[in-house]
Parts: sequence; C-alpha cells; structure tokens
Amino acid sequence: MEKKEGEGEGEEEQVVNPWTVSAKGGGKIDYDKLIDQFGCQRIDQSLVDRIHRLTSRAPHVFLRRGVFFAHRDLSEILDAYERGEKFYLYTGRGPSSEALHLGHLIPFMFTKYLQEAFKVPLVIQLTDDEKCMWKNLTVEESQRLARENAKDIIACGFDVTRTFIFSDFDYVGGAFYKNMVKVGKCVTYNKVVGIFGFTGEDHIGKVSFPPVQAVPSFPSSFPHLFGGQDNLRCLIPCAIDQDPYFRMTRDVAPRIGYQKPALIESSFFPAMQINRYAFSGGQDSIEKHRELGANLEVDIPFKYLSFFLDDDAKLEEIRKEYGAGRMLTGEVKQLLIQVLTELVERHRRARAAVTDEMVDAFMAVRPLPNMFN
Amino acid sequence: MEKKEGEGEGEEEQVVNPWTVSAKGGGKIDYDKLIDQFGCQRIDQSLVDRIHRLTSRAPHVFLRRGVFFAHRDLSEILDAYERGEKFYLYTGRGPSSEALHLGHLIPFMFTKYLQEAFKVPLVIQLTDDEKCMWKNLTVEESQRLARENAKDIIACGFDVTRTFIFSDFDYVGGAFYKNMVKVGKCVTYNKVVGIFGFTGEDHIGKVSFPPVQAVPSFPSSFPHLFGGQDNLRCLIPCAIDQDPYFRMTRDVAPRIGYQKPALIESSFFPAMQINRYAFSGGQDSIEKHRELGANLEVDIPFKYLSFFLDDDAKLEEIRKEYGAGRMLTGEVKQLLIQVLTELVERHRRARAAVTDEMVDAFMAVRPLPNMFN
Repeated sequence: MEKKEGEGEGEEEQVVNPWTVSAKGGGKIDYDKLIDQFGCQRIDQSLVDRIHRLTSRAPHVFLRRGVFFAHRDLSEILDAYERGEKFYLYTGRGPSSEALHLGHLIPFMFTKYLQEAFKVPLVIQLTDDEKCMWKNLTVEESQRLARENAKDIIACGFDVTRTFIFSDFDYVGGAFYKNMVKVGKCVTYNKVVGIFGFTGEDHIGKVSFPPVQAVPSFPSSFPHLFGGQDNLRCLIPCAIDQDPYFRMTRDVAPRIGYQKPALIESSFFPAMQINRYAFSGGQDSIEKHRELGANLEVDIPFKYLSFFLDDDAKLEEIRKEYGAGRMLTGEVKQLLIQVLTELVERHRRARAAVTDEMVDAFMAVRPLPNMFN
Repeated sequence: MEKKEGEGEGEEEQVVNPWTVSAKGGGKIDYDKLIDQFGCQRIDQSLVDRIHRLTSRAPHVFLRRGVFFAHRDLSEILDAYERGEKFYLYTGRGPSSEALHLGHLIPFMFTKYLQEAFKVPLVIQLTDDEKCMWKNLTVEESQRLARENAKDIIACGFDVTRTFIFSDFDYVGGAFYKNMVKVGKCVTYNKVVGIFGFTGEDHIGKVSFPPVQAVPSFPSSFPHLFGGQDNLRCLIPCAIDQDPYFRMTRDVAPRIGYQKPALIESSFFPAMQINRYAFSGGQDSIEKHRELGANLEVDIPFKYLSFFLDDDAKLEEIRKEYGAGRMLTGEVKQLLIQVLTELVERHRRARAAVTDEMVDAFMAVRPLPNMFN
C-alpha cells in the first residue's frame, strides 16, 4: 500500500499506480486529469458540508483543505448512514520501513477522524506479504516491520474497541482466503496487466496479490467482526495511487454477490525538506517581497501550513499577510516548522508509549462487541 | 490434482499436464518419451528390489507391475532412510466429484502401502480451492466434495495417528501461506506459462495456485506436525500428470533453503468398461484363439488383472494359459470382474463405515506424536 515517487523526468505521460507515481515531464501530478483517467469523483464543497452536517463536527482539515479530494460512492455511504445503516472503514499500510514518516501518517490521521466522526469499526491491513515480495524482504523481516509500523499506527490514537489491525502473513486463511479465491476467479491475467502493468518476467506472487488487498473490502472476510452482516458497506480512505486495486475490487464485487466498497482518496505529499530547500513563493528580495507579496499558488511552506494548521482564522490571516508581503517567507517557514515539530513530537511521545501488549491487543482476532456505539 | 483425458484425435504431440492428458493421434501415451520430456527417472528392478529389502516386505503390486514406473530422487530418499533418517509422504486430491472411482483410488492404495512399509507420516491435500477455480464450483460445494472425498480416502485404511488430511480452504494461512509467498516470489509468470500453458485470458486464481500445491512439499508448512524439522525430506506419490507442479517445486526449493521433494509417479488408467468394450487380445474365433493364443500386449483385461491381482503365481499361470490359447477371453474378463468387484465391494463397505467424526479426526490440526513409530 505504498507508492514510490517516480523519476518522471522526460516521461511522456503521468503514471500513477501503487508502485509508481510520476508526473508528465517531471512536473506536478495533474489531479483533475487523474480523476478523469481513473473515473472517480471530485469531492466538492457540498459533500464536505454534508459530512459536517451528518457528523455534527467540523470536517477534518485534510477534507476542508482538499488533501482528500476524490471519492467513489461516498454519497451512497452518506445516504446509507443517514438512513441509519452502518458501514466500516478499511485502510492499510505496506510495511517497508522501520518507522512511518509524516506523509505515511496522513491517511491514518484522517482515518482516525472518520472513525470518531462516524463511530464505525475499522480494519487496518498490514501487507507484509506484499512488501516481502516487492521489496525482497524476508518473511520474518516483513513481519517485524509490520509490528513496528503497527506501533506508529496505534500512536495515531485509534480506539482498540473499534479497530482490528492484521498482518497478512498472520491473518490470510479461512474466510479471508475463500474471498481471495472468489476474487481471483473473476480477474483475468490480461486484466491485471492492464491495471497494474505486470510483465511476464514479474513473479506470480505479484499476480496473486491484488485479491489480498481486495478482500478486506468485504465484511465476510472478517467473520469475527461482521459475522452475518454480509451487506455492511465499506469505506476506504487511501491515497489515490491505490485506486487501481479498488477499481478492480469494485468491478468484481457485484459478480460475487458483494457490495462495492466506497473510497475517499487523498493526493500525494511531496517530500518535505522544509527550511532551506522547499520551493518558496516569496520574492527574491525583501524589498520586492514587501512590494509584490508572495505567490501563494507555488509556495510549498504555505501549502503545508494549509494542510496542518487546523485554525481557519489564523490560516486566513497568514494568507492575507503573506500574500500582501507584510509577512516574510522566513516567518511562514518558522511557523510551519513549529506546527510540524509539535505534531511530530506529539507522535513521538505517543509512539514511545505503545507497548507490545497494546500491539497484541489491536491485532488479536476477536469480536468488537460495541464497535458501532 | 486431477487429470482429464483429452480428446487427442488428430493432435500432433502428446500433451500431459495436470488438466490435459492426450496422446499423439489419439493413441497411447508414450511413457518413455514422457520420462525424457519431463526429465524424471524410470523405476527399474533394482530399485524395486531395494525397496523390498529396506521394508522387509513384498513391494506393492503397483510397484512390482509397473503402475508406479517413474521417480525423482527416490534413491536419495532410500539412502537417507537407510541411514536412519525419516521422511514424510504427501499426496492429494482435487475434489471435483461426489465419489472416487477406482482410478482415483490407485494413488491412495499405493500411498497406504508406502505409509505402512516405511512407517512414516502422511499429509493429504484436498485442493478444494483448485476445483472451485477450475470447475467453477462454489466454495461451499468444493468444501462439501472435499469432505465426501475424504471419506473415500479414509476408507482406504489410513492410520489416523500418522495421517493429516486438510482442505486448502480450511488450512491455507500462517506458515503455509508464508511458504506460498516464498514460492511465488521465485516463479515468474512466463515460467508458469511454460509449465502449465496458462493464457492471458486465464484468471489469476489459476496463476496463483501452483504455490498452493507446491508447499506441502516443505515440512515447515505443517508446524503442528514437523515443527523444527525443517530438513525432513518429502516423498510424493502421484500420477505423472502432476509432475509439472513438482518440477517447479524442485526448482524453487533450494532457492528458499528447502529440500527438494522426491517423487514416485504412476501411469494413467484408461477408463474401464470391462465386459463388452474393453479391447481384447483374444482371437476372433474360439478355434483361432485355441490355435494362436491371446496377444497379451494389447489385452486390456489382462493388463488390469496384472495391476489388481496380487497373487504372482496365479497371474503367471493366467499369462501362460491365456497366452497359449487354453484360457478364453471371457474367462479372463470374468476373473477380472471378480477381482474388481471384490475390491470395489470392500471399499464400499469401508466407506459406509466412515463417520463424520472420523473425518473430523483426520482433518484436525493436531500433532501426531508417534508418527514415525
């Protein structure tokens, strides 16, 4: 469940799939084009307002400021929710590194908000099998990283009474495996080549993997959680590079008698090297800056502030002051560093407090009796 | 784990893989050519004698009379056995029909002999996942057939203290799934196309399956049986159409630090419609038959008798009498019918005595404490 930023330089077209994200000519990803390409929908203000109304709380900053910008069937999920029907959340992580960086944490921070706002259960898939195959890690190392990553995820503040975290190496089997076979039967090799770009020299482990990521979308894959609730809908918060998996899943679902999962999808975060290297929209000299103001459209520090500074009034003030040249780039960067440092420090402390027993508790195969309360 | 007899008529070359067995021009399978093609070894008299010596009992009639005619590394298994090292047996069945016919029972009858003669544990894989995918059965129907087939298998007389029968839908997961991923990583799509003849329009369930049939060859797939005995060797009795799976498995094994499984392989049984239609080597008229004798090379009833009549002296007598024309085709057919009826009736009674509790006992995931005694 993890992308890598492609080189992109000189590429003709943008490529976005679970393993490569590269923009045309090395530039920026054209998200409007991506939405057209993938066939998903843009999240508009009325949808954000509707979520506000339904959950009786301010939508998460990532939703208000367009980090999560696209969806599939989110309106249908909200319709059902409004009728009093329940759903569950599914997200995941490919454990390929020791610790999660800020970009990795974004979907989890947002998922935590969704869980709290809608009061719904959540399953989190750690695709240690995927990373074992794609990154050529040993089974043991992939499983170790999965547990380490689980600590970062738990540190985001998930509710253990509503959250099931599982490693594929531990959990694949039984009802989950039966659904994998059902999905596998409905997808031809040519189809996965079209979706994921596999070649004949790719190993068959890769070809076998898409059903593994598909089936957490179906409640019957989790009999200990959703036994008998086969029509429960699933909403998947993820980065948009994961869309190919779930396009495939949505294509298969009705053919095996299941509901299509809905999606809520984020853009990517460019790597952050804030202080010295982040592209600034400030002018070359203080004099010029005071005169012309900053170009907020291209200013990376301001963009990041807009993602992480929850305070709408304060952000609006910065937009005005910085845009008019009364605030300097250095000040914006300092403010961003302060916001991020706080965030990172809070996460560091939370993660340090996560014990092995807590990991075991989240990963135990168990019922979650009050998961909808 | 089941072949279907191909039409064959007009085919240029013989095709033998797990799903198609067709001879050149619709004729007979050329087993010598198959051995060359596959790169396995013929079982010669000295190997049969060695098994006789090592097990201190007469080799099974299927071994003496060449039903099991080819092998891979069987000598190495015997070397190890002679040194006091243990091994285990692995065989399987694709549950695609309600009951097993005589041809299906042959590998199990032979496996029972191997288990008794060498006093070794046995794992029997029921590939309900495979049949669900290839025969387009539902998961539930495949699992039902797996249990029904387990009854036929148990009726062959296996020792429950040494035998573990498992359904893939039940058992895939954990250590077994980890080995599936390890195998999958080592096999390219082009490779499975070369081995199994998959096309781009085949579904990815098929492409995913070869590791499922491969990994029972590795003791670490059964931690409840062979925990810590990772170097235990495996011997696989099977029909030779399954060889492609295990060629692949043997190719992968050393790359993931495992022993290659050894194989002992049978020919196929042509369908039996004994009394009226079986091709006879007897002459057209009684007078001519008395004069020339039967052509034993092409006589199907005699061939079958040679497989199922355990009594060497009696078979030799028939060979002499029938070959010299003193015994008539009708008499040989009658004798065969008698032998087969006895066999089938004995199996019918044994199967009727198999209870659901016995199936549960064989299929329970449990240690087998005295499996090598």
